[in-house]
Amino acid sequence: MSARAGRPIKVALLGCGTVGGEVARLLTEQAGELAARVGAPLELAGIAVRRPDKHPELPPELLTSDATALVESDVDVVVELIGGIEPARTWLLAALRAGKSVVTANKALLAEHSAELSEAADATGADLYFEASVAGAIPLLRPLRESLAGDRITRVMGIVNGTTNYILSAMDSTGAGYAETLDEASRLGYAEADPTADVDGYDAASKAAILASLAFHTRVTAADVHREGIAGVSASDIVAAKVLGRTVKLLAICERVTSADGTESVSVRVHPVMLPRTHQLSGVGGAFNAVYVEADAAGELMFYGQGAGGAPTASAVLGDLVAVARNQVVSGRGPRESAHAALPVRPMGQTPTRYHVSLDVADVPGVLAQVAQVFAAHDVSIATVRQRDRHSTASLVIVTHLAKDAALQSTVDEIGKMDVVREVVSVMRVEGED
Amino acid sequence: MSARAGRPIKVALLGCGTVGGEVARLLTEQAGELAARVGAPLELAGIAVRRPDKHPELPPELLTSDATALVESDVDVVVELIGGIEPARTWLLAALRAGKSVVTANKALLAEHSAELSEAADATGADLYFEASVAGAIPLLRPLRESLAGDRITRVMGIVNGTTNYILSAMDSTGAGYAETLDEASRLGYAEADPTADVDGYDAASKAAILASLAFHTRVTAADVHREGIAGVSASDIVAAKVLGRTVKLLAICERVTSADGTESVSVRVHPVMLPRTHQLSGVGGAFNAVYVEADAAGELMFYGQGAGGAPTASAVLGDLVAVARNQVVSGRGPRESAHAALPVRPMGQTPTRYHVSLDVADVPGVLAQVAQVFAAHDVSIATVRQRDRHSTASLVIVTHLAKDAALQSTVDEIGKMDVVREVVSVMRVEGED
Repeated sequence: MSARAGRPIKVALLGCGTVGGEVARLLTEQAGELAARVGAPLELAGIAVRRPDKHPELPPELLTSDATALVESDVDVVVELIGGIEPARTWLLAALRAGKSVVTANKALLAEHSAELSEAADATGADLYFEASVAGAIPLLRPLRESLAGDRITRVMGIVNGTTNYILSAMDSTGAGYAETLDEASRLGYAEADPTADVDGYDAASKAAILASLAFHTRVTAADVHREGIAGVSASDIVAAKVLGRTVKLLAICERVTSADGTESVSVRVHPVMLPRTHQLSGVGGAFNAVYVEADAAGELMFYGQGAGGAPTASAVLGDLVAVARNQVVSGRGPRESAHAALPVRPMGQTPTRYHVSLDVADVPGVLAQVAQVFAAHDVSIATVRQRDRHSTASLVIVTHLAKDAALQSTVDEIGKMDVVREVVSVMRVEGED
Repeated sequence: MSARAGRPIKVALLGCGTVGGEVARLLTEQAGELAARVGAPLELAGIAVRRPDKHPELPPELLTSDATALVESDVDVVVELIGGIEPARTWLLAALRAGKSVVTANKALLAEHSAELSEAADATGADLYFEASVAGAIPLLRPLRESLAGDRITRVMGIVNGTTNYILSAMDSTGAGYAETLDEASRLGYAEADPTADVDGYDAASKAAILASLAFHTRVTAADVHREGIAGVSASDIVAAKVLGRTVKLLAICERVTSADGTESVSVRVHPVMLPRTHQLSGVGGAFNAVYVEADAAGELMFYGQGAGGAPTASAVLGDLVAVARNQVVSGRGPRESAHAALPVRPMGQTPTRYHVSLDVADVPGVLAQVAQVFAAHDVSIATVRQRDRHSTASLVIVTHLAKDAALQSTVDEIGKMDVVREVVSVMRVEGED
């Protein structure tokens, strides 16, 4: 035991909204229990908020509008729950450079500046923990970073955005279209007034960057992530998925890809996919999150729980806070980032994917042959075809084998221009089957 | 960085069966990658096996039959994969007392002697890690011990034994009885030649003791765990469960129980239960494991993956090995056990549970009233009753509200002796619904 044992660990809280309020409450209400777990009391030394007068629920002597001064005071740990790049970045760099440990839920910041932040932490031996930044309460980053540290992770695939999962689940059960369902989600409080970050996939892309970096011991930023949101998902897509025994989910997908010549790269992407209804992730409904991990030795793993909300996110923040406080009590340090693998990020066009394509075609002989010819010309191999007559049109439902995404994309583009093709009803990538 | 950085971490491996062989293989094959993650090479310094001549696949210069000497040599970490109480206990205590960190998958040892082992670790500041002891590859102990360290866990409930889950899944799908299904499982290699530890619940009870200790920051040993195996589960039970939209699973259940006077205790038990088919754990089939966790702030979480097997278990062992090696590189230490809560273990009879009871009764008026009277006399409240006529007998299917297990047990005993009750077709506890 070090000489520090017993001395309080002073905690600065930056931001006190839904999550911060829960953290402050739990720090106070569970003080005795947390002290026993840490080996020293956790003392809430100050709370920085923009407008101290707007927080009558908090002890006035703790409130300040001067976050810089709070970070520079004699605190041991800085908990950042403001979000956004600046001023959070400046404050956290200042904390880490002064040797103060940081706990943050700031996915946008981590997805852009994790190299800078972890270098600052390494330089002083401070801890940088961010479990709450991905999948809320679900213990996910610690398992990836620590439990699987002796294994070789090949894939991380998950539902990491509750708003879009709520919308897609609702479209699946009601049959309604995207715009209508988004309106309903906003009305019920499942989508924000400006839902862009969620529905356009920015939120999931930040999380994908964080997951890929940890899983593959490399550096991936949000800009490296191929991103497609759910605004293009139509009621027809949902119907097409149902017909095939599939369901539509917005997934963050992080994969190790090995080229024919043996070189490794990573593919990191966020887009809607059709998943078999028998897949573990298919049953994850509403605002829940779940992440599926594949590793060479461990095989398949799944983690499931609440991905957002004040209390669940606060649980993850407090778990990190207890960890860094324990580290300080024993003058130790948690595991560092390790980006030694330095794998290149594969462009989306070069990434192997599979497509589902539903077409309404003219009901004349030879259509399938013509369509199949276009696939073949782009070196795309067809896995299954279903053909059905409907009055004067027929429908063709095609699922491909793996091919380069760019080849699939140009195949679909060309097919859309064919005379015999009346309508491209649904195009979507397929995941979760061999 | 400490002065140690770069110097190899010497690893002693005790035991080299299915799991040990995988660990040895991965340590060799992934040496470069593991060194990068740890910050120093992991050097396999020796492998203790009973009969070195039986291991032609291993480098002869590493093999020894003298585990004591290997533990006493200048190794930094001892990885124990022998199982059983002795001599594993003696070797690990010697290692910890000499300040050497220990990684073990030995659930039986931990469930009986974790107090002694963690005291030995605390005395010298050595690490004691045992992720592989419960649920194989699933990262579970680290999340309980670290990620949820700032939360208040109220319940851990899981399928932690693959053999019994395989047997119950097979009984559910084939309709066959227990004995027949166990024979088939043995023939296919899913059950050991002597299946006692699995089917009688000893294996699950050890795991329940470990889970409860970590989740509730208290000390629970295998002897504290109420244990019932699956030998009593009949084809009738499986049918009764199906009729009710439920499935039968052997669960390890660890619960915080608060008495009317506010005192807290823990209930730790292993027994078959009926679970709603809509419950997350219901869909976990075959030899897979899954554990469901409830915490005040985090809400519901689930962890799913392979609970046994060489490679999956080796993944968990290597994750621990990387963690303790990293700790040594930075002269740090992982989180200690914390048993400060010292909660009493509630006797099974005093534990609130719910029962399902299916009866064949005489088809005469007033039977339900008579049966209901027995429940009432024991202060057991009935939640639902289904009554059905079948020729000269009728069936009654009763599900109770929560009551003390002893009261439920004596209710069932008394009902079995009633003249109007022709047969007690199925009695089983119910979990997973409000």
